[in-house]
Amino acid sequence: MDAYNELLGILKDIDMMDQVRSLLGWDQEVLMPPKAAELRGEQIAWISRESHKRKTSPRVGELLDELEERVDLGDIESANVRLAREAYDKATRLPTEFVSELAKHNSKSLISWTEARKNNDFSIFRDDLAKSIDFARKKADYLGYEDLRYDALLDIYESGLTVSRLDPLFEGLRNKVAPLIRSVAERGERPDISWVTENSWEQPGQERLSQKVSESIGFDFEAGRRDASTHPFCGGPNPDDVRWTTRYSETDPFGSLYGSMHETGHGTYEQGRPRDLDFQPAGKANGLGIHESQSRLWENQIGRSLEFCQWSLPLWKEQFPENMQGVEAEDLWRAVNLVEPSLIRVEADEATYNIHIMIRYEIEKLLISGDLEVDDLPDKWDDMYEEYLGIRPTDSSSGVLQDIHWSMGAIGYFPTYTLGNLYSAQLLSAAREDLPEHDAQIRGGDFSPLLDWMRKKVHKRGSILKPAELIEEATGSPPSPEAFVEYLANKVRLLYSI
Amino acid sequence: MDAYNELLGILKDIDMMDQVRSLLGWDQEVLMPPKAAELRGEQIAWISRESHKRKTSPRVGELLDELEERVDLGDIESANVRLAREAYDKATRLPTEFVSELAKHNSKSLISWTEARKNNDFSIFRDDLAKSIDFARKKADYLGYEDLRYDALLDIYESGLTVSRLDPLFEGLRNKVAPLIRSVAERGERPDISWVTENSWEQPGQERLSQKVSESIGFDFEAGRRDASTHPFCGGPNPDDVRWTTRYSETDPFGSLYGSMHETGHGTYEQGRPRDLDFQPAGKANGLGIHESQSRLWENQIGRSLEFCQWSLPLWKEQFPENMQGVEAEDLWRAVNLVEPSLIRVEADEATYNIHIMIRYEIEKLLISGDLEVDDLPDKWDDMYEEYLGIRPTDSSSGVLQDIHWSMGAIGYFPTYTLGNLYSAQLLSAAREDLPEHDAQIRGGDFSPLLDWMRKKVHKRGSILKPAELIEEATGSPPSPEAFVEYLANKVRLLYSI
Repeated sequence: MDAYNELLGILKDIDMMDQVRSLLGWDQEVLMPPKAAELRGEQIAWISRESHKRKTSPRVGELLDELEERVDLGDIESANVRLAREAYDKATRLPTEFVSELAKHNSKSLISWTEARKNNDFSIFRDDLAKSIDFARKKADYLGYEDLRYDALLDIYESGLTVSRLDPLFEGLRNKVAPLIRSVAERGERPDISWVTENSWEQPGQERLSQKVSESIGFDFEAGRRDASTHPFCGGPNPDDVRWTTRYSETDPFGSLYGSMHETGHGTYEQGRPRDLDFQPAGKANGLGIHESQSRLWENQIGRSLEFCQWSLPLWKEQFPENMQGVEAEDLWRAVNLVEPSLIRVEADEATYNIHIMIRYEIEKLLISGDLEVDDLPDKWDDMYEEYLGIRPTDSSSGVLQDIHWSMGAIGYFPTYTLGNLYSAQLLSAAREDLPEHDAQIRGGDFSPLLDWMRKKVHKRGSILKPAELIEEATGSPPSPEAFVEYLANKVRLLYSI
Repeated sequence: MDAYNELLGILKDIDMMDQVRSLLGWDQEVLMPPKAAELRGEQIAWISRESHKRKTSPRVGELLDELEERVDLGDIESANVRLAREAYDKATRLPTEFVSELAKHNSKSLISWTEARKNNDFSIFRDDLAKSIDFARKKADYLGYEDLRYDALLDIYESGLTVSRLDPLFEGLRNKVAPLIRSVAERGERPDISWVTENSWEQPGQERLSQKVSESIGFDFEAGRRDASTHPFCGGPNPDDVRWTTRYSETDPFGSLYGSMHETGHGTYEQGRPRDLDFQPAGKANGLGIHESQSRLWENQIGRSLEFCQWSLPLWKEQFPENMQGVEAEDLWRAVNLVEPSLIRVEADEATYNIHIMIRYEIEKLLISGDLEVDDLPDKWDDMYEEYLGIRPTDSSSGVLQDIHWSMGAIGYFPTYTLGNLYSAQLLSAAREDLPEHDAQIRGGDFSPLLDWMRKKVHKRGSILKPAELIEEATGSPPSPEAFVEYLANKVRLLYSI
């Protein structure tokens, strides 16, 4: 057999295992009975072992060596070879014993973090976190890097991402967004949202609203599902079977809808993948930053626009006629756009969100380089919140212990959230040039022109290009914070007349 | 490594794959989005291939050869070796090409049967059925048999089952049950069930009733689920994760409850398996006949008893206060026990059900031996219905085309349904000797003494014994139709004063 087709055969096998594992994971989060947890762990461990065997098979290495010598490969073939090489290197460079020790440590660490957060006591998590940082350093050394150890960790979540690419993006944000936030805070004006907080919002109405909005955006429910889970996510085995979840609170009706729009963004991306590249790495959705751009696009850029609020107001009124009495589109828009520095990242507004990420990014760099000791971390965290957001955490649970990521060993992950925000603004800004009627379309609930644009420029391009190349191809410029900063400045000006 | 432990390692791997496949199948039936069907087929085919590779690995054959020489194996070890041998022989005796051709034919055949049934035209299915019979004969020849080809097919679904064991069971039934049915029919008395048919039964009430009854019987919902599906079944990956389904009709409230009790019987059996034998063949539930005995026990022997109706009447009244006004326990009991010859097996009462099976069993024997040609099958079918049940199908959809089994190549499967009925009566009759307060317990909703008896005598025994041996160990006698015939005669006497 031709080496390329032999490689594709192995990759298809690996993809099948990923599909099955994805269903096992979805089921576990959404509806598995509680006593099934232990054996579900065994099933997932079994399929992970089987998949690891294929991923590290010496035959893959031989085929890649052979294919990398070939000069006759087209774009897609080259992308498959490049992506298979990245995956093979990542899988083979970490010694089996290291991977198994790391997995054990992460399980332990997740438990001590949960305990520490519950008891509001950083010292419970301290030792495990210190060890996680050691593990992360070792991992970076196994994976290899050019400039900084931290680069190797960033590269895990977005191929090709480095500190030298990220620093300018965050600097642009810091210089432009921090003053905006300060000026809003100084104005001290707060819209009246008593109609939100003083009402109760029944779940069935929220469910129907989520469903209707997701359908309108273009999520295909014949090829996917909506469910509820404690931690909302978008999963599912393949583009014909995309499953997203949300959660409901009777005191906050925005959480479920904007969560649904976020996951709908991830979901439409998965459903829009190039189907002629099924089972191939080049046919997969691109890195985490691009994925997050699609979720943030619908959640924020579209979902929190005045035009969207104008379109969705009648839907709100249909589901909650009493609560919404007298509420106008502009009231809804102000309520979903409250800019207010707060301690908790996942509750942050669009303006402050990236400052939360920037703080984590700066801290991770310092921890990995050794310029910050774990014992000094809580104070450093609180100081940075005070410096950049003007508020200081009063306890570690709403401070340094708030995020699950470090307890899972995910160091280098946070920046992809901000990349998503920047990419989403940059993509929408480019799309607007092709769609002069964009605002009117959103006001009329016609989301298909924008979705079609994303399908063509982003979804159908799979992982053929590297993330930064994809952004440049789609928008005409390399990744930059400009579009996002401009978008935010405009919005704050409109909201607060600044 | 010791050969026995090496074998157990391979068997655990195979079991893991069965667990995963079972979840894939459950999801497919219960909630998978429609467009996902094709790739779900690929996932299932992939895991089936992986599993087949292990099941037919020459190493398994070598280990079995070695272990079969050993004289130091205990009961459980011997059972594992015996069961692994049966599975190995069944997997290796069928040539790969034959298996693949058969799978292709079965897919085709399922389509032509569906078409034939919809159009009420046997000729559409005729050629595929003839081919299925050829395939079944070849399969029997590959698998091997002592007396009759049909024995090899029976053995697939219940190990050790043969015509020489089944004929006397069916003869006992035919001689004793057919006259009972005739005498009921001659009496021409029909209880008044207008309170059932003239009311509408809302689904939420049926759901709560199903849930409450299943919980009361002892199904553990922390280790399992109840859902809805078009074809009710009991599945799920393992004893900690047992998932059963039912279906609801607003015109027939009994279908969902008695379906739920049936699946609860299967489900409690799975939950009661011996957990120290996890992943081992000896720890699995025994053959299909024993499995069916547990479902029929709760559905019929318990569920259709007067005592159960006395206990459940207040639950019915709680969910359906208006519909149940003036209905007494005896009315409920008569309604769920209507004895009436009908054309459709799945709707048949306890008395006529086994006659439906007997007709299929006799026909299968004739088809496999070649004593009945496929062209003569529809007339033969109708003649037998007229002879044994006194009614003649007016079209093939409610006659020879009603069951899906032959279209799937499942020839030799039907008798396990009747075995289940016979075993359930024989087991309950033995349990009654140990449980003198049985009737009062059922009347009081105390199902745990009976469930505990089944746990100890049946569930915890896994597949350590062969099915017929298990029945003999649990009841003191080999399988026989006596208990069932006596049970039925008693019931008909009480119901119709015959």
